[in-house]
Amino acid sequence: MTRLNWGMIGGGDGSQIGPAHRMGAQADGNFSFVAGALDADADRGKSYAQSLGIAPDRAYGNWRDMLEGEREHPDRVDLVTVATPNSTHFEITRAFLEAGFNVLCEKPMTMTVEEGEEIVRLAREAGRICAVNYCYSAYPMVRQMKAMVAAGELGAIRCVVANFSHGHHAAGDDADNPRVRWRYDPAQAGVSGQMADCGIHALHMASFILGDELRSLSADFASTVPGRVLEDDAMVNFRTEKGTVGRLWTSTIALGRQHGLDIQVFGETGGLRWASEQPNQIHYHRLGGRVEIIEKGEAGLHGDAARLSRVPIAHPEGFPLAVANIYVDLAARIRGEVAGALPGAEDGLRSMAAVYAAVDSARRDGAWVDARPPMFR
Amino acid sequence: MTRLNWGMIGGGDGSQIGPAHRMGAQADGNFSFVAGALDADADRGKSYAQSLGIAPDRAYGNWRDMLEGEREHPDRVDLVTVATPNSTHFEITRAFLEAGFNVLCEKPMTMTVEEGEEIVRLAREAGRICAVNYCYSAYPMVRQMKAMVAAGELGAIRCVVANFSHGHHAAGDDADNPRVRWRYDPAQAGVSGQMADCGIHALHMASFILGDELRSLSADFASTVPGRVLEDDAMVNFRTEKGTVGRLWTSTIALGRQHGLDIQVFGETGGLRWASEQPNQIHYHRLGGRVEIIEKGEAGLHGDAARLSRVPIAHPEGFPLAVANIYVDLAARIRGEVAGALPGAEDGLRSMAAVYAAVDSARRDGAWVDARPPMFR
Amino acid sequence: MTRLNWGMIGGGDGSQIGPAHRMGAQADGNFSFVAGALDADADRGKSYAQSLGIAPDRAYGNWRDMLEGEREHPDRVDLVTVATPNSTHFEITRAFLEAGFNVLCEKPMTMTVEEGEEIVRLAREAGRICAVNYCYSAYPMVRQMKAMVAAGELGAIRCVVANFSHGHHAAGDDADNPRVRWRYDPAQAGVSGQMADCGIHALHMASFILGDELRSLSADFASTVPGRVLEDDAMVNFRTEKGTVGRLWTSTIALGRQHGLDIQVFGETGGLRWASEQPNQIHYHRLGGRVEIIEKGEAGLHGDAARLSRVPIAHPEGFPLAVANIYVDLAARIRGEVAGALPGAEDGLRSMAAVYAAVDSARRDGAWVDARPPMFR
Amino acid sequence: MTRLNWGMIGGGDGSQIGPAHRMGAQADGNFSFVAGALDADADRGKSYAQSLGIAPDRAYGNWRDMLEGEREHPDRVDLVTVATPNSTHFEITRAFLEAGFNVLCEKPMTMTVEEGEEIVRLAREAGRICAVNYCYSAYPMVRQMKAMVAAGELGAIRCVVANFSHGHHAAGDDADNPRVRWRYDPAQAGVSGQMADCGIHALHMASFILGDELRSLSADFASTVPGRVLEDDAMVNFRTEKGTVGRLWTSTIALGRQHGLDIQVFGETGGLRWASEQPNQIHYHRLGGRVEIIEKGEAGLHGDAARLSRVPIAHPEGFPLAVANIYVDLAARIRGEVAGALPGAEDGLRSMAAVYAAVDSARRDGAWVDARPPMFR
Ligand SMILES: NC(=O)c1ccc[n+]([C@@H]2O[C@H](COP(=O)([O-])OP(=O)(O)OC[C@H]3O[C@@H](n4cnc5c(N)ncnc54)[C@H](O)[C@@H]3O)[C@@H](O)[C@H]2O)c1
Ligand SMILES: NC(=O)c1ccc[n+]([C@@H]2O[C@H](COP(=O)([O-])OP(=O)(O)OC[C@H]3O[C@@H](n4cnc5c(N)ncnc54)[C@H](O)[C@@H]3O)[C@@H](O)[C@H]2O)c1
Ligand SMILES: NC(=O)c1ccc[n+]([C@@H]2O[C@H](COP(=O)([O-])OP(=O)(O)OC[C@H]3O[C@@H](n4cnc5c(N)ncnc54)[C@H](O)[C@@H]3O)[C@@H](O)[C@H]2O)c1
Ligand SMILES: NC(=O)c1ccc[n+]([C@@H]2O[C@H](COP(=O)([O-])OP(=O)(O)OC[C@H]3O[C@@H](n4cnc5c(N)ncnc54)[C@H](O)[C@@H]3O)[C@@H](O)[C@H]2O)c1
Repeated sequence: MTRLNWGMIGGGDGSQIGPAHRMGAQADGNFSFVAGALDADADRGKSYAQSLGIAPDRAYGNWRDMLEGEREHPDRVDLVTVATPNSTHFEITRAFLEAGFNVLCEKPMTMTVEEGEEIVRLAREAGRICAVNYCYSAYPMVRQMKAMVAAGELGAIRCVVANFSHGHHAAGDDADNPRVRWRYDPAQAGVSGQMADCGIHALHMASFILGDELRSLSADFASTVPGRVLEDDAMVNFRTEKGTVGRLWTSTIALGRQHGLDIQVFGETGGLRWASEQPNQIHYHRLGGRVEIIEKGEAGLHGDAARLSRVPIAHPEGFPLAVANIYVDLAARIRGEVAGALPGAEDGLRSMAAVYAAVDSARRDGAWVDARPPMFR
Repeated sequence: MTRLNWGMIGGGDGSQIGPAHRMGAQADGNFSFVAGALDADADRGKSYAQSLGIAPDRAYGNWRDMLEGEREHPDRVDLVTVATPNSTHFEITRAFLEAGFNVLCEKPMTMTVEEGEEIVRLAREAGRICAVNYCYSAYPMVRQMKAMVAAGELGAIRCVVANFSHGHHAAGDDADNPRVRWRYDPAQAGVSGQMADCGIHALHMASFILGDELRSLSADFASTVPGRVLEDDAMVNFRTEKGTVGRLWTSTIALGRQHGLDIQVFGETGGLRWASEQPNQIHYHRLGGRVEIIEKGEAGLHGDAARLSRVPIAHPEGFPLAVANIYVDLAARIRGEVAGALPGAEDGLRSMAAVYAAVDSARRDGAWVDARPPMFR
Repeated sequence: MTRLNWGMIGGGDGSQIGPAHRMGAQADGNFSFVAGALDADADRGKSYAQSLGIAPDRAYGNWRDMLEGEREHPDRVDLVTVATPNSTHFEITRAFLEAGFNVLCEKPMTMTVEEGEEIVRLAREAGRICAVNYCYSAYPMVRQMKAMVAAGELGAIRCVVANFSHGHHAAGDDADNPRVRWRYDPAQAGVSGQMADCGIHALHMASFILGDELRSLSADFASTVPGRVLEDDAMVNFRTEKGTVGRLWTSTIALGRQHGLDIQVFGETGGLRWASEQPNQIHYHRLGGRVEIIEKGEAGLHGDAARLSRVPIAHPEGFPLAVANIYVDLAARIRGEVAGALPGAEDGLRSMAAVYAAVDSARRDGAWVDARPPMFR
Repeated sequence: MTRLNWGMIGGGDGSQIGPAHRMGAQADGNFSFVAGALDADADRGKSYAQSLGIAPDRAYGNWRDMLEGEREHPDRVDLVTVATPNSTHFEITRAFLEAGFNVLCEKPMTMTVEEGEEIVRLAREAGRICAVNYCYSAYPMVRQMKAMVAAGELGAIRCVVANFSHGHHAAGDDADNPRVRWRYDPAQAGVSGQMADCGIHALHMASFILGDELRSLSADFASTVPGRVLEDDAMVNFRTEKGTVGRLWTSTIALGRQHGLDIQVFGETGGLRWASEQPNQIHYHRLGGRVEIIEKGEAGLHGDAARLSRVPIAHPEGFPLAVANIYVDLAARIRGEVAGALPGAEDGLRSMAAVYAAVDSARRDGAWVDARPPMFR
């Protein structure tokens, strides 16, 4: 094994998601962290990068400098992670793909469906990896669910119920809190608030586990905190291509739920439940049997779940390792080895199409609308 | 205290809900069980009643005989419980109210909105109690939630999320199982399956806790098991009179959920969560604080919750005692004493209106419709 | 079925355990509550009895009057429950047994081993029922555990771990609280505090589930709150007649545990766990399999567990119904019908022997001592 | 920041704990993995090391070669992790300390008390770090508990109850399974089975959180599986230097417990509970208040807990990150920066003293014995 070179844009000091990417990329020794444009503020970004061990000449002040510097670098980065605010993802991802880099882009991949389609086309043409950080799909137990569905252990799937709700934006005085306020302001956040921020994680999980995609949906949006324009609570009913019934609730005002991402899948002969706050167990109910607790790391898991169970049964693994699993498969893909399922630009595009469809439906009193991106119709 | 006389219709040997009513009525010694028409089969009903200690002359073969027998009885029953199949509730309840009896009717109170309105009018004219067995509302911790909302401990309520889902009708071969099949057959069950059976419990809980009523709703129904006509999975979005956002999911094919009735209430300054399988605790999250566990029987509960906590803190109380709480308040009402909140004919009517509204909306692709009974518009 | 007559001594207004007995005896309509000497204060006892529907002439001022009044009463009580403070149990139980009554005595049955042996002899001679209210053993899921062990579903039992810990006496100022203080005062409570109060419940559970009895034990007692003489925290290691290893922890200063009675049984081929705060489930781990959740009311339970599952699966049943189950079997025994396992005077005696053995061992620095009553050696 | 050089002995392909060390050392980019003697089999060790990116000349065949190779290496490793089987820890740790390396040794640090004392002396003389991998103490929420105790938020501590039980050695046929069998064979495992393997983790946790050390103990050991000589189930009662009562149960035959490490601390004014399977929450009960759930990452945690909460509230962190936290503080110590609490040779020695004391006590029927190492008496 030779180590791959890795760089990051965004994820500066104090950022939310930056640490998870650094732990994720480095935990397995696959990647050396050699370059970065980590902050909106050039100086802060440079000095923070150096404090993390990056050489001064690869601690860039902004992503354009990084693109220039890395393009011709003899040891140029094998992978660039884009962990900047949402509105910049498209531009940065496009630029690096065009320059022939592999990219891991944070969600949401773009702000519009059109941009999403452009990224999909570009990634295909460039022959480069464009992954999207739907990291929850990389938990071993989520992979186990996907494999159980694929193996028919639940029979035909009838219904999927996914939630992603929390209460961290419940404070009504967010007008004074810029870290919260921008999320409900169309000028900064685009057409959607919570749906685009968290709802798409849950929708992706549903598609990922089912091996099936959204066809149509009906949405109900609410802005429950005075002064908010975009939705902070949303319900989406959907149908998949194969006809499965779907239900998604997502909220930011759900006081009492800390990280309420959970998913239930109901088939003809079995049901499964997984929750992000206890990610190492699945509750499995076989028709006519008892609820059984499937444990990460137990004997007899399906291939991908077994491979990604890194420490013994009942030793918990958490969020940073889920992100690390994404990097494990990225390294494998970059090296041309066999890799597991990796969420990609198509998934990023589908999410955007679902967001726009939900916005449209909600505006039209819950009318059912096509949830697919035009290019996949 | 003198004991009151109590009789039951339905609830025969092997019935599901019969035992809960008998325990509920007798547990506190308020009622003597003196009369019954317990079974669709007259002989079985009579002999079962006698095996339960009822005198032969008050062990009736059917409800009409019971009505005749009790009408002029010197010790006539003070309360009649109607625990027969749904389609008979209206007729029996009406007849007993007209004859001047107090009635506790099982849910759903009627099969149509019109019948519901008739019962409401009749109960008012007769000046008799017509209660409906929304027994979950009688759990002490549900009363605590209602009181906390009323006291403003959560601030203005933004959103309520209620579920009532189980997997007990997930077996696809129910065509062969008459106990399940009739529920999805319009000829026997009316316009709705799971919504009318369980959904209304959850909707009642939402209204009861909020002290607020449904105004409008949008529904998505699915019949996921081949051969079923009526819905076995439904999602209803609603708005209350005060503008609270509501979400209700109800299902019978949710393998893994045994008795998945739970409710979450989110206000400006606090959130609450209660689940029927652990009915003695509430999770309470104050804005800016930690999640706290409120225990049945703890010091300082609101009045009704304290009164109905029958055994010390952390000694669990269950479903039959929730039913018993309904009977405690019925006894108080009959005796003219101060009683707690008792779900009544108005609630039974509102449920029916919501069911019909949901059916209508689901047929019209989720259109938003008025959820109120005509007489309350 | 004819109703049996029932009377109670103790359990007056505001008492802790009184309500559970009244609900337990009446819930199933087996017993009519016709007589009582409910309070240490004669007047309060009489008026409270009448407020509960007892006729004035059977609302007695003290237990001696009740003994006189009932002895020759044409409808004399078929069962007397003794729910007074511990130090009175022996005297009252003896007197009623001698007069030919059936008795249900609260735990601990006596204050000494000698008294316990006397009650055992007396109950045998009198040919009367002397039951002891080890009510936790009457939860359906505890019966299921007993049946599973008996059926060999766990193989030979290696180890049992029982806890009964709470934090309700953690307040250090109990010197000022007479309801707590007497429990740690040898003059009032006898030789033991928490061991005699709660520890014996857990020990009885262990014996009951295993179908095996204590042989020897080693104990460590602590009085953690200054001023207390008797133990408020105790650990007992024991061995059963069949050689099973036992561990019991019991405490009253365990802040955070509300009603921490739980029990785990480990056999060659399976393990079980039950906890009093969620009494309707057992966690079952088969060697080589997954943890399964056994639900009260599920299909295929062992006989006694099925019989005592009163309402459908996942509708919780609680503490008062466990007490009611004791009364169900008492009624059956009184009527000469087939009845389930009923904890009796022998169990009450064994508990006392274990308490004295533990006290002795703790005083002798954990020396192993015989835990059996002399009469069973 | 410059990266430090890191090497590992043991932790070869397929080993249990190897991956956690690799993720732990690399996750934060503090250490470059540059040298290793990873396997008992020289060839396997060399090729596995190279597959992990180690240069051929630093992929050693055994630890002696590594000692030679690294001693004079210009970029010699700053830290050596010893993750080999227990009986080799002493020899390897001693050799590397003597050669002036910093060492992180797996538990148990040594096989005897005398060896432990030698390591303590040596580490002091050499002025080198000798840490022991009591990694559970590095969970942020465990640090929070320690800080709460130190800050007096629970008042004086009365009692600590620690368990470390699992069922992974419950299969009776382990005579055929060498990975299990050696653990109960004195010739290979020394004087103790489960106590030395897992019990010491729980004992260390108790000392760590309390900021207090064991003074005396009384033990009960059992070998429940036929053919085993050493204990597979043990109960230890203890007292700390400050007089706190302690209880420790540890088992390997507890079918149903997967990773049953949990700890409860009870003080005058508060109680805490933490469990390894849900490591990101603490249950906190303030005297007179409600149970509150403290979340990793919440606002207002004590310093060390806040520092080690790496991703936002309710995003779970697991076992590998706890190990990583040990490496974070090792890096800080090596760099001469301010570091958090780091379990060291003294702790390793105290564990060994407690194990020998427990063995002695168990052999003498639970006699109370001094639990301190001679050098700390
Ligand atoms: N996959 C997940 O579970 C997950 C979780 C959280 C956040 N995210 C996503 O990650 C992204 C970042 O979110 P966050 O919460 O970490 O935000 P944040 O505001 O905490 O941090 C953003 C960081 O990006 C830097 N930055 C901003 N503009 C930049 C630019 N032009 N060039 C370089 N750096 C720039 C900022 O200085 C800051 O350090 C978002 O797109 C968000 O949706 C994903
Ligand atoms: N409140 C709740 O939580 C709850 C729970 C379960 C059932 N229910 C309601 O209780 C009612 C009964 O449900 P169940 O599950 O017990 O049904 P079931 O089929 O188990 O029992 C119905 C009983 O009624 C008897 N019966 C039928 N027709 C009769 C008639 N004309 N006269 C007298 N007896 C008659 C039957 O012989 C049987 O004993 C239903 O309306 C149901 O919706 C309510
Ligand atoms: N089985 C269980 O789970 C359980 C639970 C709680 C209590 N108990 C037992 O029940 C008994 C009562 O406990 P409690 O907590 O209800 O006590 P309590 O102090 O709350 O009530 C005792 C009642 O007995 C009455 N009383 C006292 N002396 C009397 C006398 N000589 N004659 C008639 N009445 C008398 C008192 O007036 C009071 O009403 C105790 O032995 C206790 O150990 C058992
Ligand atoms: N801190 C914890 O929570 C924790 C958890 C598990 C194991 N451990 C400890 O870690 C150590 C290893 O345990 P494990 O479960 O990984 O064991 P294991 O048997 O799974 O692996 C041991 C590894 O060490 C290698 N090895 C053996 N002898 C060697 C030698 N002389 N030189 C170099 N390599 C050698 C083996 O080839 C193997 O790769 C033990 O001391 C154990 O107690 C600690």
